[in-house]
Amino acid sequence: MADIKALLFDVFGTVVDYRSTIIREGHQFNKEFALDLDWADIADRWRGRYHPVLKKVLDGEKEWKKLDNLHYEALKEILEEEGITRLSEETLQYINTVWHRLHPWGDAVPGLYRLKQKHIISPLSNGNVSLLVNMARHAGLPWDVILSPEMIQSYKPDPDVYKMAARFLDLKPEEILMTAAHQYDLQAAQDLGFRTAYVYRPLEFGAGNVPNLVPEREYDYAANDFIDLADQLRC
Amino acid sequence: MADIKALLFDVFGTVVDYRSTIIREGHQFNKEFALDLDWADIADRWRGRYHPVLKKVLDGEKEWKKLDNLHYEALKEILEEEGITRLSEETLQYINTVWHRLHPWGDAVPGLYRLKQKHIISPLSNGNVSLLVNMARHAGLPWDVILSPEMIQSYKPDPDVYKMAARFLDLKPEEILMTAAHQYDLQAAQDLGFRTAYVYRPLEFGAGNVPNLVPEREYDYAANDFIDLADQLRC
Repeated sequence: MADIKALLFDVFGTVVDYRSTIIREGHQFNKEFALDLDWADIADRWRGRYHPVLKKVLDGEKEWKKLDNLHYEALKEILEEEGITRLSEETLQYINTVWHRLHPWGDAVPGLYRLKQKHIISPLSNGNVSLLVNMARHAGLPWDVILSPEMIQSYKPDPDVYKMAARFLDLKPEEILMTAAHQYDLQAAQDLGFRTAYVYRPLEFGAGNVPNLVPEREYDYAANDFIDLADQLRC
Repeated sequence: MADIKALLFDVFGTVVDYRSTIIREGHQFNKEFALDLDWADIADRWRGRYHPVLKKVLDGEKEWKKLDNLHYEALKEILEEEGITRLSEETLQYINTVWHRLHPWGDAVPGLYRLKQKHIISPLSNGNVSLLVNMARHAGLPWDVILSPEMIQSYKPDPDVYKMAARFLDLKPEEILMTAAHQYDLQAAQDLGFRTAYVYRPLEFGAGNVPNLVPEREYDYAANDFIDLADQLRC
């Protein structure tokens, strides 16, 4: 078996806790912009539009746009559903870039530093490049390189996205460990010969909504968090 | 005038001292593979093929290949000129990846850490992604992101390369400072509205071959090295 040379990471939910960050920033938005929104509900609806919209793009029913723009469209729709149409373009942009300011799970940064000692580490997130760059600087994520489907104007789980990562890293699929809290992502990578690490993130959807974390397939690793993964990889 | 948000760096000659590294590793190659080559001469000839070959690619006379492959072809030709045809594929690959192991100029890493405090920093080098990733890990270059013309299968000074960088960073050209020791690179960026910093690297071609460092145009900054540039940018 080839040595693992690089780890690719799903980001939203796997590295960062988008729900908590949106709720926390949402309290500030309420104060700053005189709103009275339930940001836990907004966060769930905002993220809830993610898979259906990406599916439309991948099915060719909707033009490709970068994730910032898809987030922006969804935010506007949700705020309109709440009857809020008075916010300025600048304010909407500021709220929308909460996705650039997401906070990492507590184990993520120390885990990445350990994993980086022996392996190349990169996000392979559906976030666009500037989102991932700003997030990394904001949250202190020590990526070696940033790989995004924006580079080929597609989205995961399109197989071309994973192939792009292997090509740019000049590595064979079996030398790359795809790391994610979402099984569809791992399975798309596994189908192409990548190795896989399933990281449990029971709190991604909030403490009252713990998902079924039973592996649907056999993955190379299953880890409680990035520190556990670093232990298992002997980093 | 817009604030500078990001700095892009030429790499070969600007961030790293390829000539000294090739000479130093060359002494080891001579010992390890029983060679008797003048690696200062080899370094100059190897690098000397760079611009003519890239010109052919940009003129459509030669198929695009990533820089690792162009370096490999040039290395083989130079060694054949020296009558050396006995080296294994593995040895040739090892010698060729000296470009992944180049050492930074002494000011580069401390300067990048200072510049990074206030600005996004990225290479915009003709090196392919894996070359730049391996170099960054080997030399401790703290890039926020790695941008390479490989992402659009082109090479600098093709204007599309600079435009790609602005698009991925989601910045206007005037928010980006192109930093290079080579004026053709600065001028290509300046023609597109990027800001420019000319860094003097008098020793790029060796102490006996100091180039004419007189600016051919007015650049936004001219700096003795990256620490001087950090001073000028108040980082």
